[in-house]
Amino acid sequence: MSSAKATNRLIYLPLGGAGEIGMNCYVYGYGPAGNERLIVVDLGIAFPDMDTTPGVDIILPDISWLKARRNQIDGIFITHAHEDHVGAVGHYWQQLGAPVYARPFTANIARRKLEEHGASPKVVNVVDPYPHVISCGPFKVSYLPISHSIPESAGLLIDTPGGRLIHTGDFKIDENPVVGDPWNEALWQEVSKPGVKALICDSTNVFSQHAGRSESTLTPAITEMMRNATGMVVATTFASNVARLQTLATAARDAGRSIVLLGRAMRAMVEAATNEGLLEGFPAVVSVEDALSLPRQNLMLLVTGSQGERRAASAQLAQGSYLGMKLKEGDTFLFSSKIIPGNERGVIKIMNQLSELGVDIVDDEGGKYHVSGHANRPDLVRMHEIVKAQILIPMHGEHRHLRAHAKLADANGMTGIVAVNGMMIDMSGNRPKVAEYIETGRTYLDGSVQIGALDGVVRDRIRMALNGQMIVTVIIDENDEVLGDPWVEISGLPEIGRNNVPLVDVVEEDLGQFLGRAHPKTLADDDKLDKELKMIARRSAQGEIGKKPEVTVIISRLA
Amino acid sequence: MSSAKATNRLIYLPLGGAGEIGMNCYVYGYGPAGNERLIVVDLGIAFPDMDTTPGVDIILPDISWLKARRNQIDGIFITHAHEDHVGAVGHYWQQLGAPVYARPFTANIARRKLEEHGASPKVVNVVDPYPHVISCGPFKVSYLPISHSIPESAGLLIDTPGGRLIHTGDFKIDENPVVGDPWNEALWQEVSKPGVKALICDSTNVFSQHAGRSESTLTPAITEMMRNATGMVVATTFASNVARLQTLATAARDAGRSIVLLGRAMRAMVEAATNEGLLEGFPAVVSVEDALSLPRQNLMLLVTGSQGERRAASAQLAQGSYLGMKLKEGDTFLFSSKIIPGNERGVIKIMNQLSELGVDIVDDEGGKYHVSGHANRPDLVRMHEIVKAQILIPMHGEHRHLRAHAKLADANGMTGIVAVNGMMIDMSGNRPKVAEYIETGRTYLDGSVQIGALDGVVRDRIRMALNGQMIVTVIIDENDEVLGDPWVEISGLPEIGRNNVPLVDVVEEDLGQFLGRAHPKTLADDDKLDKELKMIARRSAQGEIGKKPEVTVIISRLA
Repeated sequence: MSSAKATNRLIYLPLGGAGEIGMNCYVYGYGPAGNERLIVVDLGIAFPDMDTTPGVDIILPDISWLKARRNQIDGIFITHAHEDHVGAVGHYWQQLGAPVYARPFTANIARRKLEEHGASPKVVNVVDPYPHVISCGPFKVSYLPISHSIPESAGLLIDTPGGRLIHTGDFKIDENPVVGDPWNEALWQEVSKPGVKALICDSTNVFSQHAGRSESTLTPAITEMMRNATGMVVATTFASNVARLQTLATAARDAGRSIVLLGRAMRAMVEAATNEGLLEGFPAVVSVEDALSLPRQNLMLLVTGSQGERRAASAQLAQGSYLGMKLKEGDTFLFSSKIIPGNERGVIKIMNQLSELGVDIVDDEGGKYHVSGHANRPDLVRMHEIVKAQILIPMHGEHRHLRAHAKLADANGMTGIVAVNGMMIDMSGNRPKVAEYIETGRTYLDGSVQIGALDGVVRDRIRMALNGQMIVTVIIDENDEVLGDPWVEISGLPEIGRNNVPLVDVVEEDLGQFLGRAHPKTLADDDKLDKELKMIARRSAQGEIGKKPEVTVIISRLA
Repeated sequence: MSSAKATNRLIYLPLGGAGEIGMNCYVYGYGPAGNERLIVVDLGIAFPDMDTTPGVDIILPDISWLKARRNQIDGIFITHAHEDHVGAVGHYWQQLGAPVYARPFTANIARRKLEEHGASPKVVNVVDPYPHVISCGPFKVSYLPISHSIPESAGLLIDTPGGRLIHTGDFKIDENPVVGDPWNEALWQEVSKPGVKALICDSTNVFSQHAGRSESTLTPAITEMMRNATGMVVATTFASNVARLQTLATAARDAGRSIVLLGRAMRAMVEAATNEGLLEGFPAVVSVEDALSLPRQNLMLLVTGSQGERRAASAQLAQGSYLGMKLKEGDTFLFSSKIIPGNERGVIKIMNQLSELGVDIVDDEGGKYHVSGHANRPDLVRMHEIVKAQILIPMHGEHRHLRAHAKLADANGMTGIVAVNGMMIDMSGNRPKVAEYIETGRTYLDGSVQIGALDGVVRDRIRMALNGQMIVTVIIDENDEVLGDPWVEISGLPEIGRNNVPLVDVVEEDLGQFLGRAHPKTLADDDKLDKELKMIARRSAQGEIGKKPEVTVIISRLA
């Protein structure tokens, strides 16, 4: 028995979420090295930005490693319904094929995604929380309810022959979360009692030094704000923050305001949460049509677009109107949210547009109208102390978060280890060690196609955006002689250069001169001709506009 | 006399900086309506970003209105040497031609810029501060020293026949600014005593509720940090923040660390500040070569790139090495700066790269290692109360800042008016009023060419970045018949679509089919053919990759 055990190993492999905040995907394995049975925890997405991923629709973890081991996968466990945890389920399920497990609200969201991709919603198994156990290959998994900024979040208790693991999922310690499961310290103590091999732990707020605040602490300030506002109030937050929707709606009702839901995601989320029985006592909402006939001071619009998303309700209201609703002087716009780093430009643009309309903007104001859904540093320490695991593996963070969290664990007597995407950790022995480096990365959904982040497609887009594009066309006849003049078209480049004549004229002139005296061997050789024409076009543009464009050369040979 | 006066007016016209933080350019005028004598205050630039201005080098205010009134301009007054105030002097001086005024340090910087553009540095007049008066057409202007995050900043006292104006420039109230002019309340009281028509006032920090802190308050924390660090310390801040350089350097010296300057701007600024006698007692610096042979704990590198600029010293150090200096485990990197909104992605990228190297990162930490150079709300109120102007015109701010500042002024008994770029304010009467709306906007320096923001060049780049680019080539012979097959090239698009065949093959096939049955009239008509081919190419791509690319059609006709 002990010799059989010695050949098995217990592994952890992050494929997404360890080295970024987004596209979470963690793999646990147990069995003979290279032939472990596997479970997947979360299948999330990340969102593109103009700096690094222009034109991309969504970013997915590269799961090639999992696809090649499809037959080893015993289950997919989704911890909660945020897009960075559940967003890739629809895109990837058919490539993995294992049963999906989730609590009811999360299952509701996951099923919609599967249906959108033509998969059966039945592959999702709705689970009860601990002490219910899901047996899945060598793993016994229980859902541990915990508070976060979306209902029915859970950590996972994962029992393996190699030891007990606790994967926190995204969490905060909140004893009064307004909606959903309050922090249950006794539960976490109970599951930690038998001894925990490794705690795999949310790292998002490791740099926040003060203990986190409860969702319920926002109620007085939000209520007061709704009462004092003289015109219409518009409030935005993540639609999935159901507790916040409840707080905002209750405050509105108490201030004599009817509630209007604007934005597809907002309406869908309130519907889903109501169906799952999470929003008991949510005030009645009125339609936009009805709202238009009510006094402004009796309205509170709950809208999507807290991150400045271009097409969301917030952005459209800021631009003038949305479904006939218009903002004006005396109205108040509440951002009950924080700006996710990288979204500042979009949010600030909306704030300035609102300002131009005369709308008063109320933002986070250092926490008065928003609390985070993640555990701050002191809360992480509290979790460390309860679980008392041998190993601490930080997850859900950029490198700086993981590193700081591992250091914190070391300081608290655990063995912290930084494992970024692709780094397989062997937890079998007394100390964790890196077993393998797996080739991994990001996959882009671009239109309807999945492309690799390193395919060069996005790199070419960025180059065109930075340098502009020039197209050179040359026709060569049957005798390898140039027919007519070279032709230049530009896109994203100034039409007139420093000599105050059209840029294309100058470049065509330079190309024509070259072609006029080009060696027949050059004219007969596509590669050589392409290279020469590109060089001349770039040099010519550099002289004229001080910029070397991307150049595409098209040589048409008359056969 | 009173009737002559009645035909003159006193105007204020912001051309940049009122509706954004950046590219400051304010015009004051006095004289007969439409024929005022003018002075320009500041000629600054703004910086591009990938979201809205990819590939652009710098952003300048559109000064067409000024160029058309070149003969009315009596002087250009630069308040301080930040790029958003002095950066356009080189680019624009020859188009305006008026004498430039500045205090010595600012003049030093302005002259370098003029020389880079082939203009004479002599056009810059070095001025003494108040009570010295510069007579300039109907204006009498004095420089009022005030503290900010760069030496020798100044507000302007502008006396006109229509009344006294005070233009604050960028400022903070700092009685102990380490380097440069301390806040001199008596001076500002004195110039305000005769009565001030209008206060044109910095609005940047109107949302910061607490009184600003002095530059000197940073010294203890920075000194302690330098002493406690065990390895090499790298510190970054704006090179132009000479007081901060002084604080960092003094702390380094006290901690037994030699100072190394990395980055062109850092070396240039220390040189300029030393030449102007501003950096007395600045510790000796050592070369990189010498530094390489010193123990790490005896070094402090002062480096450029606090905003994550891609080619700056910080970015290069984070990527591995810069001029042979390498960071490693145990070193400390101090961001003695805040992130300007919009630069988060770049700065965070560097932080994560440093984390991968094992470097400890120390950031602003809520003000421990950085203070702002702008007056916070209570400081603005203090300025309002000292100057007691009739009119308050907020400047140097986005719309939301200007609006909040005008409201604050109203609450304090002044008449606040929001004037954004292009809005000419007539201050002649008892209440300010909008006299005209001037067409204005932004000019982009792109390579060596100045292009208009609305020319469509940048719009085309953004479209290529979002949608990718497809080039369709067709050759038509002398008889208006298609010669050979259409040819498609792509750039920034996936090569393989959903049918698992090359995208270009599918599009070429669709285009070929269309051309095969196209009406001779269509083939003879370039515009029609272009339109049809574009439509088919886009539709074909949409079916194949779920995305409609930008399409350029090149029709070559054999004459």
